[in-house]
Amino acid sequence: MRSQGKLYIVGIGPGCRELMTLKAKKAIESSDYVIGHKRYVDFVRDLVKGKIIESGMGREVERVRLAVELAKNNVVSLVSGGDPCVYGIAPLVIEYIQSKGVSVDYEIIPGVSALNSASPLLGSPISGDHAVVSLSDLLVPWEIIERRLRKALEGDFVIAIYNPSSRKRKGNLEKAMKIVMEHRGDVFVGVVKNACREGEEVRIMKCSEVISSDFVDMSTIIFVPNSETVIKNGMMLTPRGYSRKYEV
Amino acid sequence: MRSQGKLYIVGIGPGCRELMTLKAKKAIESSDYVIGHKRYVDFVRDLVKGKIIESGMGREVERVRLAVELAKNNVVSLVSGGDPCVYGIAPLVIEYIQSKGVSVDYEIIPGVSALNSASPLLGSPISGDHAVVSLSDLLVPWEIIERRLRKALEGDFVIAIYNPSSRKRKGNLEKAMKIVMEHRGDVFVGVVKNACREGEEVRIMKCSEVISSDFVDMSTIIFVPNSETVIKNGMMLTPRGYSRKYEV
Repeated sequence: MRSQGKLYIVGIGPGCRELMTLKAKKAIESSDYVIGHKRYVDFVRDLVKGKIIESGMGREVERVRLAVELAKNNVVSLVSGGDPCVYGIAPLVIEYIQSKGVSVDYEIIPGVSALNSASPLLGSPISGDHAVVSLSDLLVPWEIIERRLRKALEGDFVIAIYNPSSRKRKGNLEKAMKIVMEHRGDVFVGVVKNACREGEEVRIMKCSEVISSDFVDMSTIIFVPNSETVIKNGMMLTPRGYSRKYEV
Repeated sequence: MRSQGKLYIVGIGPGCRELMTLKAKKAIESSDYVIGHKRYVDFVRDLVKGKIIESGMGREVERVRLAVELAKNNVVSLVSGGDPCVYGIAPLVIEYIQSKGVSVDYEIIPGVSALNSASPLLGSPISGDHAVVSLSDLLVPWEIIERRLRKALEGDFVIAIYNPSSRKRKGNLEKAMKIVMEHRGDVFVGVVKNACREGEEVRIMKCSEVISSDFVDMSTIIFVPNSETVIKNGMMLTPRGYSRKYEV
């Protein structure tokens, strides 16, 4: 007898229904189980027709083990904020499946990541080449994070900073802003909290203000400008260079 | 009398309907005009209830001018592949509006960008920190592109390479692969063509093979691994570091 199980690893986007993909919505609606961190489950609770299994932070390995186990005989959606392949749960699922040699039918459904949902709220801070760095040193040593920040600044990348701060590690944000200031001076950065969901707030702040205020939390993304970024009328625009080539 | 116009700058994702957001679909369906490059208009043609205005490559400024003009009195969707704020049309719209001082009600609708749609086809090549670089030197001088590639390699970023090649500029791909080889050796890279749409092809190739073959074109995205990326069973996985902290 063939197993009818399936594991969807679902990117639900920033949290508002409208920015979810059609495929993500269908997967959740068709699942026997929807598994995820409470925060993400809350965003899709009304879509769920099956059972919900939710847990807290730091239970990722347990969640993945359970999802894989249930997916042997059930349709399961493991939900992840933003895109599951960008600071999400997808790599852990693959690592788990490979290391255990489990046979399970799975599919990753991409989603709108935080940088994509937050960008329009500032105008278009990224536009072209960019680097993406998380300040969380839970899984990556700080020395690597610092090196990446410095190289991205040397390369004149626009930088999207994920997970800039949490109650447990306020220090990393201060260190990161000081590194930006070393390379670029006390520039303005774009700060978006809770993009496209309840509690959305957008600010343009100097690096020094970011350090001295309590505004930034773990639900925030920070955009560090490159040398071409223009800040004007409360907006942050990195032009793509059309004006070098055409009359705009 | 108040104008009823609205300009949606719509990210349609990779091209398959299922990976479009609910909001993008609604915007296109509700528009009096849908404007875009023929390639992108083709993906949404069946959704359009209003008029279609399509044009070819290199007509971006003209397209934006027309969209802004029509949006003074009509609902207009200007469609962009992937996400409009990542190598898309959004920054040009903002630049145009700001430079002309035009008053128009506009909204950018984010989409699933190429790196997000292509990643799952390889497993999870990005997972964490990454740099995104386009090899197109139409709008950015090659010296800047080369510098960014080198800095991203020095920072041990996974690199997503957009617009790696076109008929007019085969040379940039070869130069880029040689830079990767200088820093990392003749490593395997993940190559995805036409992710999530007709003509989809996925390969894992050595840098030297990328140079010698004709596989890569402008509809391709290349993932350059970092020092932790594992290639196994035709998949590319950059672990997030859980195994440093937990037993996976």
